[in-house]
Amino acid sequence: MSAAQRKHQTAAILVIGNEILSGRTREANAYLAAQQLFERGCRLSEVAVVPDIADSIIGTVNRLRASHDAVISSGGIGPTHDDITMECMARAFDVPLIEHRYIVQAMTEYYGEEGLNDGRRRMSRVPQGAHLIRCEKTIAPGARIGNVYVLAGVPSIFASQLEVILDDFGGLAFHRMEVEVCFPESTFAAALDRIQQQFPDVEIGSYPGTFGIKPCGKICLSSQDAEQLESAHRAVQSLIEKLQSA
Amino acid sequence: MSAAQRKHQTAAILVIGNEILSGRTREANAYLAAQQLFERGCRLSEVAVVPDIADSIIGTVNRLRASHDAVISSGGIGPTHDDITMECMARAFDVPLIEHRYIVQAMTEYYGEEGLNDGRRRMSRVPQGAHLIRCEKTIAPGARIGNVYVLAGVPSIFASQLEVILDDFGGLAFHRMEVEVCFPESTFAAALDRIQQQFPDVEIGSYPGTFGIKPCGKICLSSQDAEQLESAHRAVQSLIEKLQSA
Repeated sequence: MSAAQRKHQTAAILVIGNEILSGRTREANAYLAAQQLFERGCRLSEVAVVPDIADSIIGTVNRLRASHDAVISSGGIGPTHDDITMECMARAFDVPLIEHRYIVQAMTEYYGEEGLNDGRRRMSRVPQGAHLIRCEKTIAPGARIGNVYVLAGVPSIFASQLEVILDDFGGLAFHRMEVEVCFPESTFAAALDRIQQQFPDVEIGSYPGTFGIKPCGKICLSSQDAEQLESAHRAVQSLIEKLQSA
Repeated sequence: MSAAQRKHQTAAILVIGNEILSGRTREANAYLAAQQLFERGCRLSEVAVVPDIADSIIGTVNRLRASHDAVISSGGIGPTHDDITMECMARAFDVPLIEHRYIVQAMTEYYGEEGLNDGRRRMSRVPQGAHLIRCEKTIAPGARIGNVYVLAGVPSIFASQLEVILDDFGGLAFHRMEVEVCFPESTFAAALDRIQQQFPDVEIGSYPGTFGIKPCGKICLSSQDAEQLESAHRAVQSLIEKLQSA
């Protein structure tokens, strides 16, 4: 993406993998990307986890890419039979899946002619017109096609590829402030609602918790507008102080 | 659900919460439910994480409930302004949101007349026709409406409510076996594909990893058919033994 192009302001993440849906593996890549996008000022507005089934992947990526500036996918780009993401992306964009000569060349240099077996050859296939996403962690690149960034599922490789593409995302960074509050939510819900009305550009969430048996949660405020955030934060602090002195 | 009714064989999970999408909080409830559904033999075929925005919640729950036997939602049923799940569910099912007299009664007994403030009153509202999901962790229940189970976002409460509803889900339990494999995936990809063709009722996934700088991952097999699983497991083991002795 050239500097003149507008960066992606909204994004969705598509996690592809039976291992997440069967509870075998705890999802980590969407969590990392969520943090990074937040810091960059790109709004992550959906995460979808789907199985290694072509119709699910194709249907979901087409739905998400139509409704967000960009989609980041994770998983399914290795050499085994369950790695079907690249062919699904080609079908989603209705373009052929091609063997990319730069990948074949890089793999041949790395593994030698005899090392370029069918499995590795499989990893040289990308949708026609895709741009490669190379990183230092692997010889097999990810790919961008249109507004979809196709990254690996292995967390260390995903993280490295994410680093490479993050400059395409975001604008004004989001900021976050939190206030600890050891009262039941119902005692401040109405007053907090009034503060939310007063600061529409600040996202205010209440996340209850406990400290032993006592209620003890957090009110979390975030915004791209640092001044509004400061003001809303002061309003929430003064609300909590009033509760404490009551 | 009466014993005569068919249990849910497929499910989707809808996680509602800005705190997940902003990277503040790592998702935990879908992970727990994924494990529990797997053990019960219910196939989890999608997880969606959406923000606290009515259109997103309504659109997503309507999409998911049409394509799965059941949907479990997590989050947004507390007393604060950002808790909009119950009203969204009522809109999704096109029924009124009503104050449930049993919840009002239970809260009145628990908090006393004077303790039943607007915030708590808000938690007594459920879609008309909903069945309550009570658990020991909280006085404010979750609700089932149609094939959608509306649970809390706080992990300890979610877990407790999940326990209550799990008997509605599943059939033949899934079983899982794993084989450790310290070779690059590309060296066994073709042979593994042949094993997958041979055992269509066994889901075979390959999850690469490293031990130091050496490749060391897992081949994961799961199925509802224990005999087929054993056979496929033996086939994979013998494949890996062949690689080791080569």
